[in-house]
Amino acid sequence: MGTPLKIGIAGLGNVGTSVFQLLKQHATLVADRTQRPMTVTAVSARTQGKDRGLDLTKVKWHDNPVDLANDKDVDVVVELMGGSGGAAFDLIKQALGNNKPVVTANKALLALRGGEVLALLKNSKGTISYEAAVAGGIPIIKGLREGLAANQVRAVYGILNGTCNFILSEMSSSGRDFADVLVEAQAKGYAEADPSFDIDGIDAGHKLAILSGLAFGCVPDFSTVQTKGIRNISSLDIEFARELGFRIKLLGIAQQTDRGIEQSIEPCLVPKTSPIAHVEGALNAVYVDGDYVGKVLMMGAGAGGNPTASAVVSDLIDVARGRTLPLLGTQNPQPLKSANINERIGSYFLRLIVLDQPGVIADVSAILRDCTVSLESVLQRGRSPGQPVPVILTSHETPEGNMLKAVGLIGKLKSVVKPPYLMRIEMFGQKPS
Amino acid sequence: MGTPLKIGIAGLGNVGTSVFQLLKQHATLVADRTQRPMTVTAVSARTQGKDRGLDLTKVKWHDNPVDLANDKDVDVVVELMGGSGGAAFDLIKQALGNNKPVVTANKALLALRGGEVLALLKNSKGTISYEAAVAGGIPIIKGLREGLAANQVRAVYGILNGTCNFILSEMSSSGRDFADVLVEAQAKGYAEADPSFDIDGIDAGHKLAILSGLAFGCVPDFSTVQTKGIRNISSLDIEFARELGFRIKLLGIAQQTDRGIEQSIEPCLVPKTSPIAHVEGALNAVYVDGDYVGKVLMMGAGAGGNPTASAVVSDLIDVARGRTLPLLGTQNPQPLKSANINERIGSYFLRLIVLDQPGVIADVSAILRDCTVSLESVLQRGRSPGQPVPVILTSHETPEGNMLKAVGLIGKLKSVVKPPYLMRIEMFGQKPS
Repeated sequence: MGTPLKIGIAGLGNVGTSVFQLLKQHATLVADRTQRPMTVTAVSARTQGKDRGLDLTKVKWHDNPVDLANDKDVDVVVELMGGSGGAAFDLIKQALGNNKPVVTANKALLALRGGEVLALLKNSKGTISYEAAVAGGIPIIKGLREGLAANQVRAVYGILNGTCNFILSEMSSSGRDFADVLVEAQAKGYAEADPSFDIDGIDAGHKLAILSGLAFGCVPDFSTVQTKGIRNISSLDIEFARELGFRIKLLGIAQQTDRGIEQSIEPCLVPKTSPIAHVEGALNAVYVDGDYVGKVLMMGAGAGGNPTASAVVSDLIDVARGRTLPLLGTQNPQPLKSANINERIGSYFLRLIVLDQPGVIADVSAILRDCTVSLESVLQRGRSPGQPVPVILTSHETPEGNMLKAVGLIGKLKSVVKPPYLMRIEMFGQKPS
Repeated sequence: MGTPLKIGIAGLGNVGTSVFQLLKQHATLVADRTQRPMTVTAVSARTQGKDRGLDLTKVKWHDNPVDLANDKDVDVVVELMGGSGGAAFDLIKQALGNNKPVVTANKALLALRGGEVLALLKNSKGTISYEAAVAGGIPIIKGLREGLAANQVRAVYGILNGTCNFILSEMSSSGRDFADVLVEAQAKGYAEADPSFDIDGIDAGHKLAILSGLAFGCVPDFSTVQTKGIRNISSLDIEFARELGFRIKLLGIAQQTDRGIEQSIEPCLVPKTSPIAHVEGALNAVYVDGDYVGKVLMMGAGAGGNPTASAVVSDLIDVARGRTLPLLGTQNPQPLKSANINERIGSYFLRLIVLDQPGVIADVSAILRDCTVSLESVLQRGRSPGQPVPVILTSHETPEGNMLKAVGLIGKLKSVVKPPYLMRIEMFGQKPS
């Protein structure tokens, strides 16, 4: 049995508390697997007095988290404060400056300041492990960097935000509208009081930027990820999508193309026969498409104290086993070359609310034709002469820019009474049936 | 850049050929990820002359694979011959005797001779990596041993044989019968001329024994796995299962219980709303249920040259990175304590072919009652007085032994004209809807 690994934890929210409990409950199991006991020697959090159900009597308390990095009784720093600025960055900088390994769940920091972090690593014997930063308990970071390391990755995509997946699942099963389900999600603790970080796709975008960096050996760059959220999805869209054989999911998609890397977060229609269509509730699911392995899916809890603690401690086990790796699996990450998303090819679902009067479909069809978009289907259910009715169009494959141009023009028609709503149809390489 | 890692490959079938090609095609990528070039220096296979589309001119040929282990130009031995006896074992023994790491795809050897292999490892500085032995390209070994290493595993289960899943998927989509689809699977190369190894659940059983050993820190022991295959599933079963809201899948299930570890390979009814119900064709899918992480699913190609080569080379990358681990993730694997499967609790689907005459259902119901099995539903479609008709029964949860006793008695009724066919209903912890 080796010498104990002394751990300092910054942040004792849900995840930090679970990490503390896991290390206590599974002390024997973890020591057996690493041949090295782990012990939490120091912590730091916002308020010292709070009852977290943890016995902190034998643990050193630091008011300033950065002091963890300078504590000689801390071998490895676990950063669970979050946020891309301020204290989290300072702590990581100081730990690396002292050549200590860092384990973090901080997606924003890696997605927004990946370049700075790499620069710090260059001058340090320390390392950064971040399994918990993407998709909670799903071991997707190790999956990409180690399990699938023999592959040139073609694409990585999936459901990266549990809040959005919960809301979409509920909308789908109950027929209720977005605003209504959001309130429920907030009451159940699945969504924050200010939900915009989740429902506008920012959180998923941070995770995708990290996956993309790792998959393609590039510096993560959130600014190159196009993000669309789920605010504008109506129960109508879900109903029509179902009629067409689809479910609606918020997907993150990063894809290597001749023109660079395409990265987006956006609601997509997925075939109801695809496994990803059946990922319900707050789960996450990530596909990796590698040139030798083909498509590998990993699915599980994408958030929550215990699943995320599982990921944090798996990183600590790597540290104890002496098995850390370069941040992005390569010694020479490249700047990310981003592709213009307007040139992306895809088929689309377009919801229009139009006045039910002669000639409307003819006007819309003419615009699509002029933009060289080929229609696959037009659906109008019910009649209501002179009143607004929904019309759903689906297109064959077309460059996204053409579709966007058409949608802009269609939105200006007098008979189109609400802004058109466009979603991508994602067939995962299958041909439409 | 480190010194080259010199590789000797034994076996140049589909997988060996793909490994050779991958290492050539991705030489730069792999060297970048490991900081150590890899080069195949020696090979051994059954016939030297055969055209495999590989340039072997600069590679040493050994007629006897064991010579690879003694070749000073071989740092790591890749064993892709398969089989639990003879040459494969001798090669691994010799390599470990020479303190060389081994990478293998040999499930039979690890499942049947795990104890012997562990004894060899004890006296060697060599290691054995075997990502390719289970579920082809899916990185489930690393997933369990590293990604989910912080968890006490409660269960591991899934679809472990692509041949069976292909056959069941085809039966389900086409309504055809087993024998008919088997012929097609053989023609397409998904099934062997002698298919019994796959369709009787032996191959899946080997994989489950390994997963079970790794998940629970025990010596793999195939003899403790109950194996049932798919020969007796009829198109009728598939049809009735669908009517009841299920799909039929051949599952491997290993579960930790108070009574020991339950391990079985058997056809199961799974809810059509579960993601595993939508794993189609030759894919594999494995769930790990860990106490902190909850359920994590991994899905992908479970066989084939390229996906399996992805797994083999990921192990070589571990060797090059100096990141190998103990065979079962622990220094002290225990003998596996197997639970009596008769005490397992579950609900069941029972197909009877009975003469359509008064009193049959009453007789059957009485037997079930006497064995304390509680009926959930009885389905009979169509009438054919005096002729054989199918009757489908489903039970509430009951010990398997009770159900087996009832089935034995039911099979002896004069009105029951074919052997009853029993399958488990696997809800994955969900309650029936």
